[in-house]
Amino acid sequence: MPPTALEIRNAVMSQKLDVAALFDALRAGSRDGDGVTRDAYGRGEQFAHQLIAAHASGMGLGTRRDHAANLLMTLAGKNRNLPCLMTGSHLDSVAHGGNFDGAAGVIAGLVAIRSLQRLRLEPNCDITAVAMRAEESVWFQVSYIGSRSAFAALPPGALEARRVDTGRTLAEHMSECGADVDAVRRGVASLDAKTIRSFVELHIEQAPQLMEARIPIAIGTGVPGNFRYPQVRIIGEYAHVGLPRRFRRDAVVAACDFAVGLDDIWRRNDAEGRPMAFTIGRFHTDPKEHALTKVAGKLTLSLDVRAYDKAHLSELEGAVSHLARDIGQRRRVHFELGARTSADVAPSHPEVCAKLTAAAKALGIVTRPLASPASHDTATFTLSGVPSAMLFVRNANGSHNPHEAMEIDDFLEGAAVLTAWLAAEATS
Amino acid sequence: MPPTALEIRNAVMSQKLDVAALFDALRAGSRDGDGVTRDAYGRGEQFAHQLIAAHASGMGLGTRRDHAANLLMTLAGKNRNLPCLMTGSHLDSVAHGGNFDGAAGVIAGLVAIRSLQRLRLEPNCDITAVAMRAEESVWFQVSYIGSRSAFAALPPGALEARRVDTGRTLAEHMSECGADVDAVRRGVASLDAKTIRSFVELHIEQAPQLMEARIPIAIGTGVPGNFRYPQVRIIGEYAHVGLPRRFRRDAVVAACDFAVGLDDIWRRNDAEGRPMAFTIGRFHTDPKEHALTKVAGKLTLSLDVRAYDKAHLSELEGAVSHLARDIGQRRRVHFELGARTSADVAPSHPEVCAKLTAAAKALGIVTRPLASPASHDTATFTLSGVPSAMLFVRNANGSHNPHEAMEIDDFLEGAAVLTAWLAAEATS
Repeated sequence: MPPTALEIRNAVMSQKLDVAALFDALRAGSRDGDGVTRDAYGRGEQFAHQLIAAHASGMGLGTRRDHAANLLMTLAGKNRNLPCLMTGSHLDSVAHGGNFDGAAGVIAGLVAIRSLQRLRLEPNCDITAVAMRAEESVWFQVSYIGSRSAFAALPPGALEARRVDTGRTLAEHMSECGADVDAVRRGVASLDAKTIRSFVELHIEQAPQLMEARIPIAIGTGVPGNFRYPQVRIIGEYAHVGLPRRFRRDAVVAACDFAVGLDDIWRRNDAEGRPMAFTIGRFHTDPKEHALTKVAGKLTLSLDVRAYDKAHLSELEGAVSHLARDIGQRRRVHFELGARTSADVAPSHPEVCAKLTAAAKALGIVTRPLASPASHDTATFTLSGVPSAMLFVRNANGSHNPHEAMEIDDFLEGAAVLTAWLAAEATS
Repeated sequence: MPPTALEIRNAVMSQKLDVAALFDALRAGSRDGDGVTRDAYGRGEQFAHQLIAAHASGMGLGTRRDHAANLLMTLAGKNRNLPCLMTGSHLDSVAHGGNFDGAAGVIAGLVAIRSLQRLRLEPNCDITAVAMRAEESVWFQVSYIGSRSAFAALPPGALEARRVDTGRTLAEHMSECGADVDAVRRGVASLDAKTIRSFVELHIEQAPQLMEARIPIAIGTGVPGNFRYPQVRIIGEYAHVGLPRRFRRDAVVAACDFAVGLDDIWRRNDAEGRPMAFTIGRFHTDPKEHALTKVAGKLTLSLDVRAYDKAHLSELEGAVSHLARDIGQRRRVHFELGARTSADVAPSHPEVCAKLTAAAKALGIVTRPLASPASHDTATFTLSGVPSAMLFVRNANGSHNPHEAMEIDDFLEGAAVLTAWLAAEATS
């Protein structure tokens, strides 16, 4: 008989002090100024993997590292041949990031498993908490490296990508962290969708939508797809500050028209309730040529556009092209969109979402569905065919910064939902 | 009796080959790739000063260098105690600039004086062609260094300004070029408005307005005043790419609103026939912090706004502040305008303009008044109390670039106007 809601609550909440101590130990070992730096396939991430592996061993879990040095921590089920239940997230962070982005999902998996242990629940199938490597794209300009290696879905050339700070290749960094680079290169898979019944990733929300709604936990409706132009160049003509307006081919003003136009497209989509996001993270005139008294002839910007629906993404891509063409003609400049990358939309599995919602409801926890436009390892699982979903935990201050502000009580609510879901699945 | 229009034309036009050869010699000695580099108080400018001084000596002119190493080349008048007539421009260029910006005005002065010599005109007063130093602000981030030193109007601290390429101070560079830095520091003046009857500077146009109008020569209506904010900072908040629009404090979008808003103000001023210009030459996110998947929390830009009327400038400054405040509130960002510099409007002297117009008309040369929003040494003369004006020569391709395209025939038309003006003034 599965445990009651009250038993689950007690099993989870009783770990409060241990959980806080584990987060603190993780922070202490990767502290970097105000924040933490757990560099992908580097010192910080390596420390986190060792700490978490030791913790899992202490819990009596079987631990193994796959060819990409991802860490798998397993509570054995009665029938080890059944497809397993899997949960987890990543342990790397951005530089000077926060302690919770990624790590919360790994620790939630361990909290849920320990709760099941305390409840003396014997799962029908294996339950695995996974700690992925190198999810953050900032280090090698490639995202989800750990989970994509696990599913043999790493993009060509990724092993030769150089880490932005060290200048050394992913292959070198992986090798130093105990990965089997040859196996990664040969496209070996360590995970197989057929052997995974479902995957759930708990993650802090990267926006304050749950703060605004005063709700601790949300069920993620999916990881958006995106298209990216990392290096859009707008070519006008450098000119003397004395050039009248009608003769100018000003790259700055044209680029600004573009950004304001994109923002207006977003505003209209928001008003229609169609979630999307665009981000221009880099935007700059050429430091070798720009000057106070010179009309700028060149501007470079990066563009990331994301949405939750394939058709919506192509509609947005059409709008971006149309806007660039229109401004190009009007301002007499040339838009070179440059290299394009994209990622498919990865919608959550409706059945997994429904079960998570039901588990929360049984615990008396109010949730809501949430479109959160960030990227997550869950996308790799979904796109590899594993029925997957996400749990988001309320966070006031965004992520990728030292001020992430997840309350341990909110985190435990999320871990309770995860525990209830695992308990129900592992006994049905 | 002053020479006839035909005599003046012949005296000027007969110098065509010599003029072309002098421009070529100037280019050959300061060539840098496609363009020329005559670095202020450096090798390139020094070469130009030596070449022009030798040429003037060959013409039998008295040459002297003042305490700032400006070069004064004088045809002695019958009464050397009368206020002189003065013409000229600067010999420095921007890096990889064109051969004509500045130099054309110096050479035009020598062409005019040689024409007077050939016409055996004995001027009543001295006629001086001047070659100023360091007019271009790009080198030391200070404009008109030569002419402002001559009138003891160099801004405080300028001698300690460092040249952007060498990192060495103006004082060091001046000293190496034979200037008397102590005299500059003490605020000695080498020119006195009371001893200069009028000053005229010939200069290539920096825009294609005369190309558009199919007119070779224009009479400048004045040097605009300006206000500048070299380092405007727009402070929002760095955030994860997953942050929805309503939570963002995006410095890029706010800065783009600002640029597009300024462009719209300019468009409306143009439509009302009120000449002005604004230029955002530098515009950039922070290379240490910006990233493809990060909302930008900071953007830096430079702003230069210019107009021909003091009241108009203050109206524009009010509009800039209002726009920044409005966008700041709407986008929840903070505009730090930072340090401000300004220059007064320097309108041409109506009587000098009228005389230049009349001189052109007598030669059968069509001119027009022209508001050209660039800065020139003439501003220093005007603001020091010398009745001054400018002659602009048609140029297809703007200035500060290797493609300046002044036709020698157009230049000679301008030199003829200058000659006719000097002849009339020096015999009246």
